[in-house]
Amino acid sequence: MIKVGIIGGAGYTAGELLRILLYHPQTEIIFVHSSSNAGNTVSDVHVDLLGDTGLKFTSTMPLSDVDVIFLCMGHGKSKEFIEKNELPGRLKVVDLSHDFRLKREGNEFVYGLPELNREEIKTAKKIANPGCFATGIQLALLPLAAGNLLVDEVHVQAITGSTGAGQKPTETSHFSWRNSNLSAYKIFEHQHQGEILQSLGQLQPGFSNGFNFVPIRGTHTRGIFVSAYTKFEGPLEEANELYQAFYIGHPFVVLSEKNPSLKQVVNTNKAVLYLEKHHDKLVIISLTDNLIKGASGQAVQNMNLMFGLDEKAGLNLKPVAF
Amino acid sequence: MIKVGIIGGAGYTAGELLRILLYHPQTEIIFVHSSSNAGNTVSDVHVDLLGDTGLKFTSTMPLSDVDVIFLCMGHGKSKEFIEKNELPGRLKVVDLSHDFRLKREGNEFVYGLPELNREEIKTAKKIANPGCFATGIQLALLPLAAGNLLVDEVHVQAITGSTGAGQKPTETSHFSWRNSNLSAYKIFEHQHQGEILQSLGQLQPGFSNGFNFVPIRGTHTRGIFVSAYTKFEGPLEEANELYQAFYIGHPFVVLSEKNPSLKQVVNTNKAVLYLEKHHDKLVIISLTDNLIKGASGQAVQNMNLMFGLDEKAGLNLKPVAF
Amino acid sequence: MIKVGIIGGAGYTAGELLRILLYHPQTEIIFVHSSSNAGNTVSDVHVDLLGDTGLKFTSTMPLSDVDVIFLCMGHGKSKEFIEKNELPGRLKVVDLSHDFRLKREGNEFVYGLPELNREEIKTAKKIANPGCFATGIQLALLPLAAGNLLVDEVHVQAITGSTGAGQKPTETSHFSWRNSNLSAYKIFEHQHQGEILQSLGQLQPGFSNGFNFVPIRGTHTRGIFVSAYTKFEGPLEEANELYQAFYIGHPFVVLSEKNPSLKQVVNTNKAVLYLEKHHDKLVIISLTDNLIKGASGQAVQNMNLMFGLDEKAGLNLKPVAF
Amino acid sequence: MIKVGIIGGAGYTAGELLRILLYHPQTEIIFVHSSSNAGNTVSDVHVDLLGDTGLKFTSTMPLSDVDVIFLCMGHGKSKEFIEKNELPGRLKVVDLSHDFRLKREGNEFVYGLPELNREEIKTAKKIANPGCFATGIQLALLPLAAGNLLVDEVHVQAITGSTGAGQKPTETSHFSWRNSNLSAYKIFEHQHQGEILQSLGQLQPGFSNGFNFVPIRGTHTRGIFVSAYTKFEGPLEEANELYQAFYIGHPFVVLSEKNPSLKQVVNTNKAVLYLEKHHDKLVIISLTDNLIKGASGQAVQNMNLMFGLDEKAGLNLKPVAF
Repeated sequence: MIKVGIIGGAGYTAGELLRILLYHPQTEIIFVHSSSNAGNTVSDVHVDLLGDTGLKFTSTMPLSDVDVIFLCMGHGKSKEFIEKNELPGRLKVVDLSHDFRLKREGNEFVYGLPELNREEIKTAKKIANPGCFATGIQLALLPLAAGNLLVDEVHVQAITGSTGAGQKPTETSHFSWRNSNLSAYKIFEHQHQGEILQSLGQLQPGFSNGFNFVPIRGTHTRGIFVSAYTKFEGPLEEANELYQAFYIGHPFVVLSEKNPSLKQVVNTNKAVLYLEKHHDKLVIISLTDNLIKGASGQAVQNMNLMFGLDEKAGLNLKPVAF
Repeated sequence: MIKVGIIGGAGYTAGELLRILLYHPQTEIIFVHSSSNAGNTVSDVHVDLLGDTGLKFTSTMPLSDVDVIFLCMGHGKSKEFIEKNELPGRLKVVDLSHDFRLKREGNEFVYGLPELNREEIKTAKKIANPGCFATGIQLALLPLAAGNLLVDEVHVQAITGSTGAGQKPTETSHFSWRNSNLSAYKIFEHQHQGEILQSLGQLQPGFSNGFNFVPIRGTHTRGIFVSAYTKFEGPLEEANELYQAFYIGHPFVVLSEKNPSLKQVVNTNKAVLYLEKHHDKLVIISLTDNLIKGASGQAVQNMNLMFGLDEKAGLNLKPVAF
Repeated sequence: MIKVGIIGGAGYTAGELLRILLYHPQTEIIFVHSSSNAGNTVSDVHVDLLGDTGLKFTSTMPLSDVDVIFLCMGHGKSKEFIEKNELPGRLKVVDLSHDFRLKREGNEFVYGLPELNREEIKTAKKIANPGCFATGIQLALLPLAAGNLLVDEVHVQAITGSTGAGQKPTETSHFSWRNSNLSAYKIFEHQHQGEILQSLGQLQPGFSNGFNFVPIRGTHTRGIFVSAYTKFEGPLEEANELYQAFYIGHPFVVLSEKNPSLKQVVNTNKAVLYLEKHHDKLVIISLTDNLIKGASGQAVQNMNLMFGLDEKAGLNLKPVAF
Repeated sequence: MIKVGIIGGAGYTAGELLRILLYHPQTEIIFVHSSSNAGNTVSDVHVDLLGDTGLKFTSTMPLSDVDVIFLCMGHGKSKEFIEKNELPGRLKVVDLSHDFRLKREGNEFVYGLPELNREEIKTAKKIANPGCFATGIQLALLPLAAGNLLVDEVHVQAITGSTGAGQKPTETSHFSWRNSNLSAYKIFEHQHQGEILQSLGQLQPGFSNGFNFVPIRGTHTRGIFVSAYTKFEGPLEEANELYQAFYIGHPFVVLSEKNPSLKQVVNTNKAVLYLEKHHDKLVIISLTDNLIKGASGQAVQNMNLMFGLDEKAGLNLKPVAF
């Protein structure tokens, strides 16, 4: 059994991790740290876990008792944590913040998108888990980059559920405001663009065409709906073959022959992709659950790879479907 | 033109008042006071009014320039306001808080439910506008009380939209929590019970049978769905006639022959009632929009009555329907 | 491995069964019969299963190849099926329709509510799986009936998700109509009352006090929110002990100390109960997922019991939570 | 008073027309024709109008008794109607279908987008009311076309409410399917592209750059959220001035300085526009209510212009806001 510690246990991504790991056949949760909730039972905060676990939040982090820790704190906090704590040599780390996603001198974290970096992840000690938008968008574009086929501007629009914004109440997360509402934000300036461009450049060195991205707040809680398009000369069949070939052996990416809808992936670790060709453009629809494939499910997928487990262990999740 | 001042102009009920009064044919808005927003344009806060008005929030309250003020501050604040300010003798007041709804020594406010107290309202100077749950529930039960027909316990269940809880972000108003969710609260202990029992007792003196009330938070923004039932000996026809007779001449209460649904009243000042008889019970469905008939629309209805205008002036609102 | 056949494979309850059984550790799905979809892949209809299974719907029902069949056809169709087909002697049957829920001469089906009839279910060959409202309401009331404590009228109000009404498009399932809407239906006359009263009478023979039930269509897809109350003399502690004692050893029923909300159970087989005492009334909140504990999850729970498996096998489902 | 007849009275757009015209100060509804509902009261179908009108649907169309008719039938039916019926010479027609939107030999209808064709509309006898997507998208782009500034491909993405698809129940309008769901459809091939390109070409003759349009089904009932962008050389101020100048005197188009959200326009005839500049791109957000500015409200706006009334008559609608 892999022994697991969770740090920052009261937030959304920690809740999802717990929901997954409690029934993962090869993990044991040793501690769930939360400074604000220390001593309370985990199901006091993640109330849907009532009856599933009697775990309590801890104020201590017995790092030498675990094989892996998941960092589920706010952005900026992971960096602080890594700087302040001396980690046991054998301890693996999966960080769900954006602190270590961008390559730079001294950053030892591997960018944890298994469909891009599976082999590196298997031997990594530290993983920077991708952002939710970044996951859905990269999966839509990676096969093109791998074929050096991003030859013109890329146009991306993505609609996210409210859980992507975390659990702190704000004006735009107020039910009275958000219900039946839509709004764009950080137009062309979303912070995930950095990691997306980094990955595209990894596969297609020198990629520097325009990347146009309109993020939209949707009136749903879970899931990211990406529609993207760019110039593509070949016929649809060629594109489908390209995507099929790129994702062969990647169990969570599914190419749909029919135009899909977002709820097909909600509460699963899957990404569903769908292609259409119009004029000179290839249109790609990409669907993911922002809290699972876009966060905690992918973190578990990375853990599975790091410890040599079946990539799908613990991730055969029942879709919510409705 | 009736000259209007609004105090506490940044909240939900003030917003609804503005949406109604801006196009009321016989009112002119002289000032909208908000200490926190003084100097800002009204449409900065009530953004749907962009293009409808260039009004700005004021820090002053020129009470002698207006004929009527609407108090839209939090509960408790109206009492403070009345105590601190000397009101010009001719100024009328409509208070939307619960501060003056209950009769007690020295309380000069008339309880502003037109279907109960229309004649008193016409000559009143100060109106305590009813609570939202209280409005929907009283309209369901008043005809029975008027006939001394509340002879057994009354059972009431009501589902409210999120706007009933105001605009302050809280855990239970967070979209991620509330969307597709339901929860009961203040079971058998809701603060509106006082005014409901007061009105029932006004019509049926000595009413003291049990009043059982389960309030429920719904996953919608606007509207209160009340289902109520109590013992009733006669046939359905008798009940329908009783209700028809009681509400004759009250333009906003409509008796439906068909089982109705909540959206029939959303964005209107109407209350739709519907009756069924089963065994020895009369079941009453009562539908209202909590922000309009349950708050700001009723406040305008009261103003219309106080100034001798057509009761419906400014209140022929387009239903949202969908 | 238990070999499973599903009949009526295209509907909502069959879809949920598939979502659960595909990852059940001790079952193998041998066939999924659908006359209208024979030959199509299962994931063409249950599109969220794309990538999870390559199963196709069959036009044949090889009954002798399986250990158990689940009947997921419309109400009335199960009776027809049982009359027309000679079932192999060893074949077990779980029927999700209401055809065999009521006891009558010649009805060999055991009513499959494990918290009521677990021992009988273990040795049964044929199970009538309870209705969704019936499950949530019975779990709220059984401990009282078991103590002969239903001494006065029972008041029940339940709000159901849209999936309870099946997948046939109707006026009241149209998104434009139902979104943000609420409506009551079959007031005091819902067809599940029969099975509820049957079970209450099983534990409290002679129970004949009034049963008042208002079913409501909610604006959500999954889950039933029940609020019920009746006279109860003792203090809250006594009620909590009574419920705790009754459900001890029943792994899916959880008593909450805090006022819960519906989403705590969505996408799980759990029922969360919560009690409050007011005046002379005990109030019970009961939360279930209508498609899981109220249908397909309970069907699997029954199968587990019939075959001597762990009652929770395959039912450790990740809650959707949001 | 303008005397009005409505043909095809049972559908969504007719319902909206009725909701608006019943309280329009200068119109009188003479008949509402519906072959399927003849004899029934209008509020049996448009149930939110209960208490507002006692009108009944007619089986006859007394065309000589009215000044204007609104054609609210399905697409294709208006053409049939015009061919089959001889219209009185003085009768004006507003057609809400797409039958006459495209210019062609013999088409006498004026395309009824007041912000494009106001002068022509004033003297027109027959109006082809624009499509809902077409309205929102054109309002986003017309000022650029008017300045010959569409110099590169145009990228448009629009999310529509469910009422845009009409009231016939379908798989994608089923609440269980659509709630919390998102899906693209008719990608790059939506039927409204024709009228959009026609209008852009009217202002910028020879416009033939690519028009890329991804329509998306949202999980809301009312409103179209458009995000569009294209190359624009100048600074943001220049764009804002251009839009301000183009829409000066058009009372329903409002330029927002702040990033707006869809509900600002729901239940109104307004279009809210908002601009941002990034790199070489101008991004335009355009918000409209598909049933009002995108259909029946615009139809009334056209009627007002045709009869020389105030363009806003009857259209000072209370926003739903929440």
